[in-house]
Formats: sequence, structure tokens, C-alpha cells
Amino acid sequence: MKFSQLLIPTTKETPNDASLASHIYLIRAGFIQSYGSGLYNFLPLGKIVLDRVRAVVKDELDKAGAMEVSLGFVTPSSFWQQSGRIEKYGKELLRFKDRKNADFVLSPTNEESMVNLVKNSVKSYKNLPLNLYQINLKFRDEIRPRFGLMRGREFLMKDGYSFHANEEDMIREFNLMEKTYSKIFTRLGLDFRVVEADSGAIGGSGSKEFMVLADSGEDTIVVCSECEYGANIEAGIRKPREIEKNNFKFEKVETPNITTIDEVSQFLDVKPSQTIKAVIKKAIYDDSSEVVIFFLRGDDTLEETKACNSVDANELVDISEDEIREAGLSVGYVGCFDLPKDIKFVIDLEIKDEINMVMGANEDNYHIKGADITTIKNASYADLIAVQEGDICPCCNSKLKYTKGIEAGHIFQLGTQYSDALDAKFLDNNGKAQPFVMGTYGIGVSRLLAGIIEQNHDDKGCIWTKESAPFSVNIIISNIKKEEEVLEATKLYNELKAKGIDVLLDDRKDRFGAKIKDFELIGIPTAVVIGKKLADRLVEVVDRKTLEKTEVKIENLLDEVLKRV
Amino acid sequence: MKFSQLLIPTTKETPNDASLASHIYLIRAGFIQSYGSGLYNFLPLGKIVLDRVRAVVKDELDKAGAMEVSLGFVTPSSFWQQSGRIEKYGKELLRFKDRKNADFVLSPTNEESMVNLVKNSVKSYKNLPLNLYQINLKFRDEIRPRFGLMRGREFLMKDGYSFHANEEDMIREFNLMEKTYSKIFTRLGLDFRVVEADSGAIGGSGSKEFMVLADSGEDTIVVCSECEYGANIEAGIRKPREIEKNNFKFEKVETPNITTIDEVSQFLDVKPSQTIKAVIKKAIYDDSSEVVIFFLRGDDTLEETKACNSVDANELVDISEDEIREAGLSVGYVGCFDLPKDIKFVIDLEIKDEINMVMGANEDNYHIKGADITTIKNASYADLIAVQEGDICPCCNSKLKYTKGIEAGHIFQLGTQYSDALDAKFLDNNGKAQPFVMGTYGIGVSRLLAGIIEQNHDDKGCIWTKESAPFSVNIIISNIKKEEEVLEATKLYNELKAKGIDVLLDDRKDRFGAKIKDFELIGIPTAVVIGKKLADRLVEVVDRKTLEKTEVKIENLLDEVLKRV
Repeated sequence: MKFSQLLIPTTKETPNDASLASHIYLIRAGFIQSYGSGLYNFLPLGKIVLDRVRAVVKDELDKAGAMEVSLGFVTPSSFWQQSGRIEKYGKELLRFKDRKNADFVLSPTNEESMVNLVKNSVKSYKNLPLNLYQINLKFRDEIRPRFGLMRGREFLMKDGYSFHANEEDMIREFNLMEKTYSKIFTRLGLDFRVVEADSGAIGGSGSKEFMVLADSGEDTIVVCSECEYGANIEAGIRKPREIEKNNFKFEKVETPNITTIDEVSQFLDVKPSQTIKAVIKKAIYDDSSEVVIFFLRGDDTLEETKACNSVDANELVDISEDEIREAGLSVGYVGCFDLPKDIKFVIDLEIKDEINMVMGANEDNYHIKGADITTIKNASYADLIAVQEGDICPCCNSKLKYTKGIEAGHIFQLGTQYSDALDAKFLDNNGKAQPFVMGTYGIGVSRLLAGIIEQNHDDKGCIWTKESAPFSVNIIISNIKKEEEVLEATKLYNELKAKGIDVLLDDRKDRFGAKIKDFELIGIPTAVVIGKKLADRLVEVVDRKTLEKTEVKIENLLDEVLKRV
Repeated sequence: MKFSQLLIPTTKETPNDASLASHIYLIRAGFIQSYGSGLYNFLPLGKIVLDRVRAVVKDELDKAGAMEVSLGFVTPSSFWQQSGRIEKYGKELLRFKDRKNADFVLSPTNEESMVNLVKNSVKSYKNLPLNLYQINLKFRDEIRPRFGLMRGREFLMKDGYSFHANEEDMIREFNLMEKTYSKIFTRLGLDFRVVEADSGAIGGSGSKEFMVLADSGEDTIVVCSECEYGANIEAGIRKPREIEKNNFKFEKVETPNITTIDEVSQFLDVKPSQTIKAVIKKAIYDDSSEVVIFFLRGDDTLEETKACNSVDANELVDISEDEIREAGLSVGYVGCFDLPKDIKFVIDLEIKDEINMVMGANEDNYHIKGADITTIKNASYADLIAVQEGDICPCCNSKLKYTKGIEAGHIFQLGTQYSDALDAKFLDNNGKAQPFVMGTYGIGVSRLLAGIIEQNHDDKGCIWTKESAPFSVNIIISNIKKEEEVLEATKLYNELKAKGIDVLLDDRKDRFGAKIKDFELIGIPTAVVIGKKLADRLVEVVDRKTLEKTEVKIENLLDEVLKRV
């Protein structure tokens, strides 16, 4: 296509609210335009990239046997009432009424719709398995939309749902989808990692995330320095620590105004790892809330998502000292023994069998030494801790470290929770009605554009990967007034187009400097500059990634370009 | 693709609320599934057809130099307030608030969004003309969604908008779009007509509709039996009628209980065409309403859209006899003379210069003979009449007739109304700020699926046209247990696929009868039945449209199929 005929409004101005490279460059290079908080229009270049990414996603999914459908975006609230998610999803779920006062939502995800579709279409095990997907608009009314396409409110998502006669077959498809997603991310040229994940509001028995690695990522990932192990910190595990044991008799000791783990350790001359920490939160449920205490080792950190899951709450919120006292607790002296009756507490799994610890005595100014956790009755145990850098890998004994990632895909072993809730059944080979066993699989398609640029940019602009680039080649006519330059550029343009290569011909009347700046900003992988040296039958080929310039004889140009694309 | 691996839930059951063939067959053949009033999911076959239609639309638009973008679906209400359409659009415009109580609409069309996009991207005449389009979801909260995809609430629309430095260039693009749309409809195999149209809620100075001709169409179209003239009845015109003149002196005559045109004609021995009819309506505006009288020839019919446009109202509603009397009028005796002061009335253009007519005297039981319309002062005149069958074509003197059509495309010469309202300007070649001159162009993409089937079906099911069919060939294995049938079918399947032809292989374990019924219901243009006669090296090729069966020697089969697709 010709630049002069395209709407590519490049600009030097950085958008006010933008801090991430992808947010800045996608706007500055004329890929997207903001029209409200978390709302974007895709301009011609942005639409081309979106279509290219979408095509890769569709191609791999179709090859894997999945079928594309298109579900309605406007969804009856009744679907969400049946599944029980109408409250649980919170305010991110945009609700509204139509002219007849019926309740609807704008779909943020479509488990309910797809279960209804299959419930109405499939009666027998003979039609299973099925993997249905769509690449459609979604809406999540984020409290703080930010980072451009990374966390917008309206966005394009691939959401897929598989239906099986049994769990074994679902796991087979889950593994196939893991491979398929890996192919998609690989084709798009992304550096990514598949990690263990928390299943969040979607639910299910196991899930993995596809993390595009980038310093700007919102997610912390725990990865092994040696083996393949990786997990979102929300789901990361470590080999349990070996702790030097205390050797105390059980006793209550006075610890006046000694309330923090550091103070206690110093005062009683123990290591923080030999103490027990209490983290007190308020757990919020659909219609109620309660105070919950989480007990973990003194030098560990509570992982809030794990903690929230352990009590099946919608969210955990902080609590004031006054509220702690109102719950009958001693601020700074909370321990697992002699807690007020009926107060909910959860103990970290790693200290389940711990003995001889130091912890609060549930009495102001007193701690207990020599506490054996094993003596606690009727307690709940759960993995509550955030894995730390330097912890030991659960798979290989090497050290774990942190990295940052952008969640661009998420696959779930869902089981029967939605089929049960929506009463979606098939007849098995014995003629017995069984709930569908489901998997669900998502890719943030518009977010991928941001992910690609987060991973591929420099201080001049975007650097698109081969399969995501809006065009493969950017031919720049240095001076549009020079007829020979125009002729040579047009010849190459037509030759490349005839070979099916997507070319952008910069035929604008602008200065050369502006054109090369736009090339660097837009980030097409290869530029061909047709300029002064044409007199010597030479043109320049520029690699966007390295910015390396190569002089090429005009007779070798087509071969050189074909070699690169 | 293999039938056994696809979700194609065909059924014999006719949906309860369905009367149109397209509605019935698209559901029965498993193309779409209803999930609420005017809301549909596209199943795998429906998605394939949607994509094929979409691809034709995109291909022709891109060739014509238009650029695809993707605008947000969720749109700030402020855009619609600026344009003044927020009230005018009525309840079809779905409004809602986000979590921060900001007002939004679900876009039913995107003039405002696109003007904002261009306003923020284009500063100079050098970047004009521009034609930007998208193929995206729309929502119109129809009071009575019906006829399946024909009048759904959520639907897929191609909406395009062009921006020009002057009206002349806009008209050039309007004509180019007329040609482009004609190519699209022709490629899709549709029998259509481009007709003059009313511009409705979109506005502008001129518009044409693309009508898919079908008896089930909701629109009445006036077409010439000889020339190319065609118009939606809302915009149709005729050559003014030649009327035999009366020859009366002006006089008031008693006409007791004589109130209808027929009664008056008989009583006074004149033709209905020599009388004047008063049609009284209530005109509804944004914040008010008023009684309006429309005067037209006695044997003409009021065209309500024309009448509504003539008083610039949002809509016209019927009025009771009591309300007529309250307005100071004599029911059955209303004429243009001596009307109560301040009452609004409009006279049909065709009787503007009429003399010697019969009409009501605005007094119970009296009419006037010999009324000269020319003597009326300060009247408004407008074309108010519905063209009738047998009226004379305005272009060629042949007779006009009615036909029915489905509005599947609409193109508008919009002018500057939106650029003015949204203050969208560019600098012309003298450096002066000028409002963009606009055109706007729409195609109901999902509605086209219904249009294709309304025009192409029989009592067995769908008959897809070549470019819209989900697959070109349907290979039916008559008996899946016969190995030689499976082998031969698979060979043909692979050969056709290798030639890039879309094939559906019906490899299900079902009976032959069920497979042939599904072929007829789904409507793939050509079927190849591999059955018993394979023993004689013969197979059957079936044409879906004619249902004609041809026996073909197996060695000629590939050529025969290639000839047909």
C-alpha cells in the first residue's frame, strides 16, 4: 500500500497518561487512538496488525481441530445468575437494562453462553469432544484502566471452550491446547513462558498461564534457574525450607511493646524463621464479611491470592487496629493458641508439623515460646506463602528467581462446575445423563499487540516481529521529486507485491528525515531506502531491529529483500 | 472438513417464532442459534458463511481504496449529545452507565465516533479524501425484533465514512461506492436493485438503498417496468397525474353526514381525484408535539415518511376524533380554507397549482366546491404521496409497479452536518478551516445471510450462492461401513482440498436418507454421492438448486466437480 493513501497519523507527542513503551508507541505511530478511559479505536495500521495476529491464532486453532463460532456480546444476566457468577464477578461485569427492562451484561468471558449453546446442540457422547472458540469483543469495567491495550476495558479476546465425556479426555485437550498456544506465541516471535497459575474467577482444578516476559509485566513469575519450572507467584511453590529448630520449654514470656517479628526475634534471640507471624485480614463474600487470621513462618510473606482462595472469599481487604481489637484480638500478640472462639484462621501448610516455635500469646505484652503447631485441633491448613527469590525449586533443587510477565494466555481444566450449575448434560454410552467435562482457553488478542511491543522496541519506536508486522518491507523514496527514485521504488514495490509480500511504499512529499523517523517509529522489519546513491546503482537496506544499514547493488536488491522477509 | 468433527446441529423442528424461510432454515440447518429476543449465536457453519460474505465486502472495499479500521463498540454518550442525536435516535439507542456513573451507548452506527477519529488525525486537505470503514458489531434495541437475522438487535454491519474537501469529491466517492456495492452484491449472487431512498435518522442530502428483491422484504419499492428507475416508496416519485378539471363556481354546499372521499365524490358527482383529502396526525418532536394536517388529492395515499420529513418530526402518530375536535377542527369536513389560526398544515406539491377542487369547509356538514389552492397564502408544500402501481415513471413515461425488497445496503451523501455539529475541520489549500464534507455507506452483513436465503431457498432448505456457500462441495458417503466408498470419497476429498476447494465430507454413521436431507437443508451448491453404483464405477453428482442428479464415471468425477465449482 502507499503511505500517501493511508491514514497513519504519526506524532512526536507522548500521550499524557502513557508510561509503557507499547502504550506510547502504538499511539505515536498511529496504530491506535484513545477515545475514552480504557477505550481504543484501531486505525488502519492497528487493524492490519490485529488481523495478522488473529490469523495466526485462528490458523493454529483450526489445525488443532477447534471450531470458530461467534457468540453474542450482549448476554442475558440470567445466564450469569444460573452460574452464580453475577455477584462474584463484581463491578467489572458491566450490567444494563434494555428498553423492556430486561437485565443484560456485556460479556467479559463466555463460559455461560457457550455451555448454553452446547446444551442446546449436543445430546450424545457421540458428538464429543468439541472445542469451540471465538475471537470477539469483551468488556471488563476495570476500576483503573491503564497501560493502553494492556489493560483496556473493551478488548479483543480469543475465548475457547472444550466439552468432553470424561476428565481424561479433557486433560488430553488441555495438553493439546498448551502445545497449540505455544505454537501461536512462537510464531508471533514472542519470548514467553508457560507457568502454573491460579484459576481465579474462572475456577477449575488446574490452570496454566502464557506469560510474555517483559520488565513492564504486571505479574511476578517464579522461575527455576535450571529446569522448566515456572509459576505465577499466586500459584508458585517451593521445596519446604529446612529450618534450624528451637530448643525451648513451653512457656509464656513477657514481651512488653515487642510486636514485630524483628523485635521478637531480637528480644528472644531466635531467628525470624523460628517464629510464627499472624496476618489479619477481612474476607469479603457475596453477602457478608469476616475477620480471618493467616499464620505463617515469621520470615515468609503472605500471598494474598492463595490466602483469598483458602477461605473461598471474593477478596481480602486490610483491617484497622481498632477492628482487630473489636474482634477480641491483641494487636501484635496474635498466636494460634487460645484464640477467641469462632474466629476463622488458616495455618500455612509448611508449618503444619512445626514444633518449638515462638508466637503471640493472644494477650497484650506476652509471647509463647516452645509452641507445637501439631497440638492445634480443627485447624485449616493451606499453602499461603509467596515464594521468594533464592527458594528451592520443587522440581530440581536449583534456586528459584523472579521475573516479570504479561499474562497473554490462560488455559483451565474446568471440570463440571459450569455444566453442573447450568444443568448441561449429555447421554453417555450407557444412556446415562452426565455433565459435560469442560476446559476453557483464552488469549488476549489485542493485549498481544502491547506484549509484542513491550518485548520488541527501542528508544525510537516499535520493532514488529515477522508474523505480526503490518508490512514486511517499507520502501522509502528519499526524494519524491526525483523521477528515477520514484521509478525504481515503484518497480521494487510491484515486484514484491507480485511475490505476495506486504509492502508499504512511502511516497509522501515529506523530507527524507521525517520518513526514516516514521519507519523507526512504526517498526516494519526491513526498509529499503532509494536515494542519492541510485546514481551509482546502489540502495540501502535497513534492518529495523539492529538499525544496521547495508548497501546493495540495485540488481541484487530483490534477492536481498526476499532473503530477509 | 469432516461432518463428524463439526458441530452442525440440524433439526426438523421449526422454531416457534419463525415465519420467514431464512429464519427457519438458518436455525434448522445449524447456522445460527437464538439465545434471546433478536440475539443470535453463529455456529460453525454460520461463522464460515459470515466470514465468506465479510471477505467479499472487504475485498471490494479495499480495491476501491477504502481502509479498514475498528472503532470501539462502547461509545461515550457525549459524542451523541454533540451531534444532537441522543434524543432523536429514540429508544433503539441502548444507553447505560459504567461503574463510575459515566454515560455510554452501544453503537447502532458510528458517524460521531468516526468524525472524532478523523478530527483527531487529519489536519490538512493534503490527507483527503479518506474512506474509512469497519465490519463490526452494532446494537439497536428494536421494539419488536423479528425475522431472525433480518431484524435482530445485535448484528454485524459494515459501516464506512468518507471525508472530502468539497461536495464534488464526495459525490465522486458516493458514485464509486455505488459501483463498489453493486460489485459486492453481484459477487454474492444476489438479485438486487439500487433505489432512491429516504435518508432517515442519518440525514444528508441524498441517499440510495441496495434492495435485495424478495417477496418477504419489509420494504415496498417502486420500480419502472421499462427503465432503471427505482425508489423506496418512502422516496418514490411519479410523473404528476393529468386530472380532468371540475367546472364549478365557488360555493359552500351542505353535505350532511357526508365525510369520506367516496361519499363526497358520489354525493357531488365528482371524481375522487377532483377532491382534496385531509389526513390529520400528531407530530412528535424531541420535547413537544402538535397536530398537523396533510392535504392531498382524494385518491392519493399519504406516505408517512415523506409527511414526517416535511414537518421535521421524529415520528407521526394517529390522532383520535376527540383530539381532532379539541384542535378546533370539524371531523370529516377539514379543508385548507379558514383553518383555525396557528394550526400547522402541509399541502402536497402535486395539488399546489390545482383549481376548482372539492374539499371540506371546516364546518360540520359543509363542503366547498370550486376551491382554488393557488389562493392559499403562506402554505407549506411538500411531496406527500405514496406512488401507486400504474402511476407513470418520472424518467420514461412507462408504468410504475411495486416490488418488495430487503434493505441490505444504504449509501448517503451526508454533507457537513456531523462535521459542523462536532466542529471537525481541516485546513484547505488557502489555509482556511473548513468542515469535512462527508459520505456514509452501510451494509447489513449479517442481514445479507438472511437476504441470500430469502432469495435462494426451496421447500427443502437453503440454496447458497457460489461466493456465500460455507463449502463448495458436499461429499456424501452413502454407507460408511463400505470400505470402498470411504476410500473413494476420501480420495476425492483430498484431491479437491489440494486444489484449494472447500469440501465438506459427510462421514457420519447416519443413514443415507438423513445425509441427503441434511445436504438439502444446509444447501451446499453441489453434492457428490458415493454409493452403491460404485461397483459400476459410477457416482452421482447432485445440483442443489435444480436437485438434478447426474451419473458420472469415477474417472471423470474430478473434472466434473471442478467444472461446477
